[in-house]
Amino acid sequence: MATMKVHGAMFSTASQRVFACLYEKQLEFELVPVDMSTGGHKKEPFISLNPFGQLPAFEDGDLKLFESRAINLYIAHAYADKGTQLVYDGKKMATVSVWMEVEGHQFDPVASKLGWELVFKPMFGMTTDMAVVEEKEAKLGQVLDIYEVRLGQSKYLGGDDFTLVDLHHLPYIQLLMGTQVKKLFDSRPHVSAWCSDILARPAWLKVVAMQAKN
Amino acid sequence: MATMKVHGAMFSTASQRVFACLYEKQLEFELVPVDMSTGGHKKEPFISLNPFGQLPAFEDGDLKLFESRAINLYIAHAYADKGTQLVYDGKKMATVSVWMEVEGHQFDPVASKLGWELVFKPMFGMTTDMAVVEEKEAKLGQVLDIYEVRLGQSKYLGGDDFTLVDLHHLPYIQLLMGTQVKKLFDSRPHVSAWCSDILARPAWLKVVAMQAKN
Repeated sequence: MATMKVHGAMFSTASQRVFACLYEKQLEFELVPVDMSTGGHKKEPFISLNPFGQLPAFEDGDLKLFESRAINLYIAHAYADKGTQLVYDGKKMATVSVWMEVEGHQFDPVASKLGWELVFKPMFGMTTDMAVVEEKEAKLGQVLDIYEVRLGQSKYLGGDDFTLVDLHHLPYIQLLMGTQVKKLFDSRPHVSAWCSDILARPAWLKVVAMQAKN
Repeated sequence: MATMKVHGAMFSTASQRVFACLYEKQLEFELVPVDMSTGGHKKEPFISLNPFGQLPAFEDGDLKLFESRAINLYIAHAYADKGTQLVYDGKKMATVSVWMEVEGHQFDPVASKLGWELVFKPMFGMTTDMAVVEEKEAKLGQVLDIYEVRLGQSKYLGGDDFTLVDLHHLPYIQLLMGTQVKKLFDSRPHVSAWCSDILARPAWLKVVAMQAKN
């Protein structure tokens, strides 16, 4: 079997989402680095893999995919017999799907804006807009209030088992834990315990180690 | 079998997404109206169905779901043997999943802003911000340029068959076709043919008729 390829970058949160999934599934993969600093994601050969010019893209034999969450769904289903079970069937999967949408539409838009303002803008020598930070922190607080209730009812967001839902949150939780946003996670007991749990997963620690090496 | 329930509203685009799916699957359902004008979506009993306070929520027996795209995935899988096939397996589904993510993360954020500015703000007596419209139209044009290429390669976005991907676009295409944004769809031949095709589906015409009646 040919090795799967991830066209991505270590500091790309969406690429990290796919690395975490591949490590959970104990699958071998090749990272094909895309140099965003020279616009590698906006030109060939990458743009033929993802016309939207966003990392990552993925190849498994002749199958070419993009969009990190779709890539992970494919990996989780296609390699169901390997590593951690990350998806289910029937009604259990229906609830997992609900919370996957919540991550994509409620958590990510706010968390990614905070990551941009508090991590990436300073990294690129740009000035953080504290008014945006304040507004988005309030919004994230509201989302985490709902997570706090949910995580009081089930150990993980999608149910009693760790699934793609939780995994998809990891890159931004990791990133924001190094910023003032940490207090929003720490001040909610169930959210805080959930963060500690999922951030300590061996597969995630491998992703963190990948970044540290580079 | 108890009838499925959709807690929603006729003019809610996310509710329409679920109605369209149920009609494609030729399934009976009961619409439980939620009165957004009195904040019905932000209080009990609705808020127990969806803590984020957004329409719609869905019940099938003891299963309670929210997030329109997750609801539709459940319906499409659980009632695979009814009506139109809207999801597939394996690699074919992987490509459908990619374009479902594209709808959710590339099309919807722009289309929903345009719908807000050009349809809902005037409806609520608010003033359209034409600078936002201009910016979002440029963004939507870029997304539709990519759709134009894709739809030159396959009849539908997810492949050769109509799937949930196309269906999920319907509410905002319908809404924006009644605005100045129409020109962005009409000026791209493959996009225009695709819009005409999916807007004419009998299941979608039933959703339009539901709205007209109210």
